[in-house]
Amino acid sequence: MSQTDKTRTTVDIYGRSYTIVGTERAHHVRMVSSLVDQKMREIHDANKSLDTTKLAVLTAVNTMNDYLKLKDEYAELLGSIKQKED
Amino acid sequence: MSQTDKTRTTVDIYGRSYTIVGTERAHHVRMVSSLVDQKMREIHDANKSLDTTKLAVLTAVNTMNDYLKLKDEYAELLGSIKQKED
Repeated sequence: MSQTDKTRTTVDIYGRSYTIVGTERAHHVRMVSSLVDQKMREIHDANKSLDTTKLAVLTAVNTMNDYLKLKDEYAELLGSIKQKED
Repeated sequence: MSQTDKTRTTVDIYGRSYTIVGTERAHHVRMVSSLVDQKMREIHDANKSLDTTKLAVLTAVNTMNDYLKLKDEYAELLGSIKQKED
């Protein structure tokens, strides 16, 4: 099992260290991680009683919601192009 | 502070209960939550030693990565439309 095209990047998210293995470049992994860290801190500021697990799960829910909205917008944009081409 | 346009939806994600307050419809919140639950289980299957917090953080990182990729694709698509229009 070759690992040559895989990078290992160590990042800090909400005070804990994570080693992320994948095909993304280290600076990309760090950027993504810093956005997650930032979102966790925003959700914490809005609700200080949440423990770290709940905070992380709600961050994932929030991001998944953003993702699905963008997916809809993407499909809509693609649909409007196809309509023009017909 | 009016709460009339807000919904409260209770969902179960990875064995814990969450009450999500927002403007989204209940069935949408449940769908988003079930995708997060599913992703957490997939990451757990790939690495059974992770605790729930790490699992949730990595799920958030994974989803954020998908979101950013889609954002790039969206910008690219929009760019190609603008180019055609010029």
